This record gives sequence, structure tokens and C-alpha cells, in this order.
Amino acid sequence: MKNKSGICGRSIEDFLEIIEGFHGWKAPGVVIGGFMVDLARELVGPHLESDVVVETFHCLPDAVQLLTPCTFGNGWMKVLDWDKYALSLYEKKTLLGARVWLDLEKTCLFPHIFDWYMRRVPKKALPLDVLLDSILAAGRDILSHAPVRVTQYYGKKQKGRISVCPKCREAYPVNQGSQCQACGGRGYYDRLN
Amino acid sequence: MKNKSGICGRSIEDFLEIIEGFHGWKAPGVVIGGFMVDLARELVGPHLESDVVVETFHCLPDAVQLLTPCTFGNGWMKVLDWDKYALSLYEKKTLLGARVWLDLEKTCLFPHIFDWYMRRVPKKALPLDVLLDSILAAGRDILSHAPVRVTQYYGKKQKGRISVCPKCREAYPVNQGSQCQACGGRGYYDRLN
Repeated sequence: MKNKSGICGRSIEDFLEIIEGFHGWKAPGVVIGGFMVDLARELVGPHLESDVVVETFHCLPDAVQLLTPCTFGNGWMKVLDWDKYALSLYEKKTLLGARVWLDLEKTCLFPHIFDWYMRRVPKKALPLDVLLDSILAAGRDILSHAPVRVTQYYGKKQKGRISVCPKCREAYPVNQGSQCQACGGRGYYDRLN
Repeated sequence: MKNKSGICGRSIEDFLEIIEGFHGWKAPGVVIGGFMVDLARELVGPHLESDVVVETFHCLPDAVQLLTPCTFGNGWMKVLDWDKYALSLYEKKTLLGARVWLDLEKTCLFPHIFDWYMRRVPKKALPLDVLLDSILAAGRDILSHAPVRVTQYYGKKQKGRISVCPKCREAYPVNQGSQCQACGGRGYYDRLN
């Protein structure tokens, strides 16, 4: 590895282990995400109170949740369904921070990573350990970054006034209408009794 | 406590500790969420491969991520912005499972929980340890559940074909248009250099 040898104060081995424990397997995207979070924290200053915006639903949110105090459930991590491998870590008060992204042009030096990310090879043709070796060898060398000011999605998600849905008698936010989402026909389940 | 004395095989003390480590503090919603996940797992069968739909962004997703293999980043947990304190855990193959929800009528027996959930008292008037004592005393007694068949949001989120945005040169999914979300004017940041 050409880069510093740890990720957010952990050894690479420890980091791979906690990925497996949380995410279920050593997903390449989470490993790359570890290097991204590590770089972002270094740029922003690891001791500041930071929030984060993640630009993909895939893998990267788990690297953030494992390596920063930001989680989906505490609201300090916002996730956009853009499918871009990028995140912005920023200081809560000033909204200043760093955006870090997987730089596709830089991955050309690491053809396994390029092929994997662009889905140019079937999974069977690129064994996980070969891909992970490339990712660990690349470290930060496939990333770019820029200073940013965050202009949206910051701050606490406001909770609306809570009322009781007249149909199901469950609590729901009144700003969603006269009944809850499920009773309004947008449900995702059939009740079996 | 009138209920069984642990949560998903952990002691209550351990569970409160891992909440604090991950979520940042012993948030009442995550503690209630622990009882919800524990009940749902018991109903569905803890050894089945299960996915989950969570009906609120607040707190509950973190209980799920701490107590099941489902995370936001691995895609086994889907989260709806409905602000209902409910989740459905279901078997991946059959789509059959259990929906568990905070039953507002049952919280009337635990007035602190009712007041907290309905935001009827200012935070200062209800100290965290008093509220947590109520939640631990209530356990499952404030929950209801029903068997369900999941009809939406199941399965793997499809990844689209990836291309290079002609403007920023970053990778993005082509099904989003001729340029990426940020270059298309929906960005959340100003780049500072």
C-alpha cells in the first residue's frame, strides 16, 4: 500500500472485520468507502461535529455509519438516491466541508476496479479477493476531493405534528393528509388477519 | 420488567451500550425499536433470511441495523419517510412476515411514553432516565403486531447502466438523463475551488 496504513484509526484488518460484521460481507464498495471517509475526515478535521450527505444508496452509507458518529437513524447522515460514489462531510455550523468521490479516470490505473465499478465483467470473472487486493493497493489513489459549502439537506429533519389516523388508529404526521400513507392507498403490505 | 429480560439475545444493559456507541445517545426511540425488532424476529423466526421495511426515518432504522443483518447500505433495510413508528420484517423468499407497531392506545397506560411520542411535554419536563424507565417497564406492552405479505419495496434495488457525465466526468447512471443530478441543477453543494 502506498497510502497511510490505517482507516480512521483502525488497522485495515480490523476495518475489514467490522465491515463483515455489520454489512454481511467484505463488499468492495464499503472498503473503498472506508478510504473515502478517512480522507474526508482528515480534510474536514476529525474533531469537528460533522454531518454528511452520501450520494448513493449502495454500500457507501455503511462505511459512513461504521466510521463516523453519523447514522441513518440519528439523522446526521442524509442519503441521496443519485447512484454517484461520492460523499460530502461538512461541519454542522459553518456548512463547510469536503466532497470526496471515486474518480473514474484515476481507476484506469487499477483496471479491476474500473471493470467492477463500470460492471464490465461478470462477477465470476473477477474474484472478490483479487478485487479487494486492488482496492487496498489503490487506497486513496482512486479518489478526488474538493472543498464545498453545503446548500441543502443540512440540519435536523423537522418532525410534524402527530395525530391519530381515523382508519387504522395509528399515530401519523398530520401534514401528510387526513389519513396515514398506508390507509391512503400507498401501503406496501397486505395484512393477513 | 414484565417482559422477557433481553433483546435479541443481548442483556438490556448491553443493548443500551451499543445504542450509545452507534446512535450517539440512548435515544428512547431506538430503545423502543429494540423491543420491536426483538418481537418481529420472534414472530418471523430468527433463523430465516429476512428483509425489513421501516416506516420512519427517525431512530427506528438504527435499532434494525444494530439487531439484524439488515443495513441501509446492504439494501436489506428499506426506509419509508412516513413517520409511522412501525416496521415489517419478512422472509425474503415468501414475502411473508410480521408488521410490528407502536400502539398509541396501549401507551395510555404509560403516560410518559404517550406524552413523549405525541410531543405533549417539552423535553426539559421529562428527563431521559424517567422516560427510559417507563420504556423498559413497558417492553412489548406498548406494541401490536399482525402477519403481513409484503407487496412492494422487496428485492434488490436494480443498478442502472453506468456512464460518464459529460460535464463533471464522474460516473452516474444513464437512466437519470444526459448528465448527472448535480450537473443537472439538483446539487446540494457549492464547490469552493
